[in-house]
Amino acid sequence: MDMKHYMLTLGQTAKKASKVLANAESKQKNQALVAIASEIETKQAHLLEENQKDLEAGETNGLDSALLDRLALNPERIAGMAEGLRQITALKDPVGEITNLSYRPSGIQVGQMRVPLGVVAIIYESRPNVTADAAGLCLKSGNATILRGGSEAIYSNRAIATCIQTGLSQAGLPKEAVQVVATTDRAAVGELITLSSYVDILVPRGGKGLIERMSREATIPVIKHLDGVCHVYIDDKADKTKAIAIADNAKTQRYGTCNTMETLLVAEAIATEVLPELVEIYQNKGVELRACQKTRQIIQGIHAATELDWSTEYLAPILSIRIVTGLVQAIEHISQYGSGHTESIVTEDYSRARQFLRQVDSSSVMVNASTRFADGFEYGLGAEIGISTDKLHARGPVGVEGLTCLKFVVLGDGHIR
Amino acid sequence: MDMKHYMLTLGQTAKKASKVLANAESKQKNQALVAIASEIETKQAHLLEENQKDLEAGETNGLDSALLDRLALNPERIAGMAEGLRQITALKDPVGEITNLSYRPSGIQVGQMRVPLGVVAIIYESRPNVTADAAGLCLKSGNATILRGGSEAIYSNRAIATCIQTGLSQAGLPKEAVQVVATTDRAAVGELITLSSYVDILVPRGGKGLIERMSREATIPVIKHLDGVCHVYIDDKADKTKAIAIADNAKTQRYGTCNTMETLLVAEAIATEVLPELVEIYQNKGVELRACQKTRQIIQGIHAATELDWSTEYLAPILSIRIVTGLVQAIEHISQYGSGHTESIVTEDYSRARQFLRQVDSSSVMVNASTRFADGFEYGLGAEIGISTDKLHARGPVGVEGLTCLKFVVLGDGHIR
Repeated sequence: MDMKHYMLTLGQTAKKASKVLANAESKQKNQALVAIASEIETKQAHLLEENQKDLEAGETNGLDSALLDRLALNPERIAGMAEGLRQITALKDPVGEITNLSYRPSGIQVGQMRVPLGVVAIIYESRPNVTADAAGLCLKSGNATILRGGSEAIYSNRAIATCIQTGLSQAGLPKEAVQVVATTDRAAVGELITLSSYVDILVPRGGKGLIERMSREATIPVIKHLDGVCHVYIDDKADKTKAIAIADNAKTQRYGTCNTMETLLVAEAIATEVLPELVEIYQNKGVELRACQKTRQIIQGIHAATELDWSTEYLAPILSIRIVTGLVQAIEHISQYGSGHTESIVTEDYSRARQFLRQVDSSSVMVNASTRFADGFEYGLGAEIGISTDKLHARGPVGVEGLTCLKFVVLGDGHIR
Repeated sequence: MDMKHYMLTLGQTAKKASKVLANAESKQKNQALVAIASEIETKQAHLLEENQKDLEAGETNGLDSALLDRLALNPERIAGMAEGLRQITALKDPVGEITNLSYRPSGIQVGQMRVPLGVVAIIYESRPNVTADAAGLCLKSGNATILRGGSEAIYSNRAIATCIQTGLSQAGLPKEAVQVVATTDRAAVGELITLSSYVDILVPRGGKGLIERMSREATIPVIKHLDGVCHVYIDDKADKTKAIAIADNAKTQRYGTCNTMETLLVAEAIATEVLPELVEIYQNKGVELRACQKTRQIIQGIHAATELDWSTEYLAPILSIRIVTGLVQAIEHISQYGSGHTESIVTEDYSRARQFLRQVDSSSVMVNASTRFADGFEYGLGAEIGISTDKLHARGPVGVEGLTCLKFVVLGDGHIR
């Protein structure tokens, strides 16, 4: 296979399809989403068969059990994919909305219209349900999509892609609106991330290595998601009950998600009041603690945290704890070691809450709420294509609106300068 | 001078100052703007002296008269700089505004807060007034700025920078909030565009070569402004008087601006009605015409346009003209040859106007208005730091709001998942 030619064709056909999709009515896009959902349900047996091939190859290639679990489809997961697509139909169509249309002194009327970006390329690993989720969000926002899943999921992804294309055709939309890169050749990624004439944005969903490669080699803008080193700061003006509930939930509700707290900061004046109870909770749940010197003076038998701990995203039942003098030092710590993902303050103090919200430069800043709320569904975006830790374009959870941009619209009546 | 070390220090001090600026109140930022304006007026004689050094060096180095004119300061231009800064005080401060703060089913309240990007680096050529304009917009939007002007304006830029820093100090803001790269060494640009730990966004204002270098070498996101190959399409349902006024104004009001029309598209059915009158207007104003075969059958003695003409930004009294079959072919032509800057349709037809607005994928789309309106001041942004032909982040004229981003704000009362 001539990879350059293959990827170029993929890009060109996607660009062409994107023009049809950009002008498709909401009704037609929703019909396609429903048709795809039905097709995925109808083809359940086939999807499981194809997924089985991936699983067998994965076992032969020695994938670990966590990876195999993420790769596996079952009737519940297939039903979940279909349900996710149907939920996207309920989202407001962002395309074509005109805002702030107002008259200028010159007499022209100026506003902004929300339009699709064009072609979105998504590069991801393992979980085949991303294929359906991502395609659905791009479709709703009027973008064509090129999907490049991990080689370990190639049979599953191809089978899901066939369902998607069938659904698109049933709704009268071009099947090239969603295309899956049909080869496992790694050279395809290199071609894809430099197709700047045809692809408008790259969304890498995967490990650090993948995202760093994108940043280095891509000639197309990237919606980046780097580490989630999230903090909860318990202020000395905190309500103790709220503080304990939030610090517990932010760490232990799920360990492997990017919005999980990795470092707990506690104001010195409240440390002896909240830490003993919290440490007991963590230890009962099997969370390994790594703490600063001051914490270790209050609670015996905890390992010392190293400098590296403060900037580590554990994604595991491990937590680092630091006692700080107060709000200012907490904000400094977050600024120095945080990754700009999500931070929360627990306090009943009005001015400190305001100061934290304004001064902490993260994609989500919270008062008296668990960092675990930082996701597209909880924020009402419906679903998310990723969480951006970049500042440009989209910051935080990226939903259908993050896949669009605003162009200026000018209405006149023969106006000249 | 150790360039790497020098630029690193510049970046680090800018980042530090950006944190102060991000939290500065509107009043203090406005005080700084007024103080800088006064200082520029007070130091008029000194600015003219320093500018004279640049002009003499420019003459010695054989700069052409157009460049020397752009480089020159005079009392009017200095007054203009000061006035521009005072106008920026009247703009609404975008920083800290919270929008869409609403309750979610979980009980948390979610909204978005507008915050500065951080450190903005601006790389530009010739005109020293950009130094004051750009610094003013960045200051208002709470960003620190690193300015790298052309080497031909180094004395002028340094002198303006001193005025800016004096004004900042008078208002109690760190003078590192606006820094001018004090060396003409070209290696400084290479360092600046890869300072990704300290600089959040690059704004190149200059020729194509500069912008292409940014796209190639920069490791920091760039607000790009490429060509402005703007179109006016005269539909066969156009009002003839409006069509002629707009096609005249869009080309001849100013030749060297990026929002000037470079190609005129005319529907076949109205060509003989409007073209003879328009051609006479253009020829009387000394505009060279290059036209398609059909146009040349209606109007004798016009040069034939080559394929290259359709994608050329002349920035000069030259215009290419093409007769198209109608709206569909006009949109196809724009899609194929346009640069995504600004396009206008002249028509009285409701459906065609709507179709043009929706289907033309440019940063500004217009109905019955001259393309010359596409700028920040006319759109009510107050001023602009550039016009983005990118789709990501900011599209079209970029004002203070384009120098900010939105972070999520979550307010709870002990809420957990």
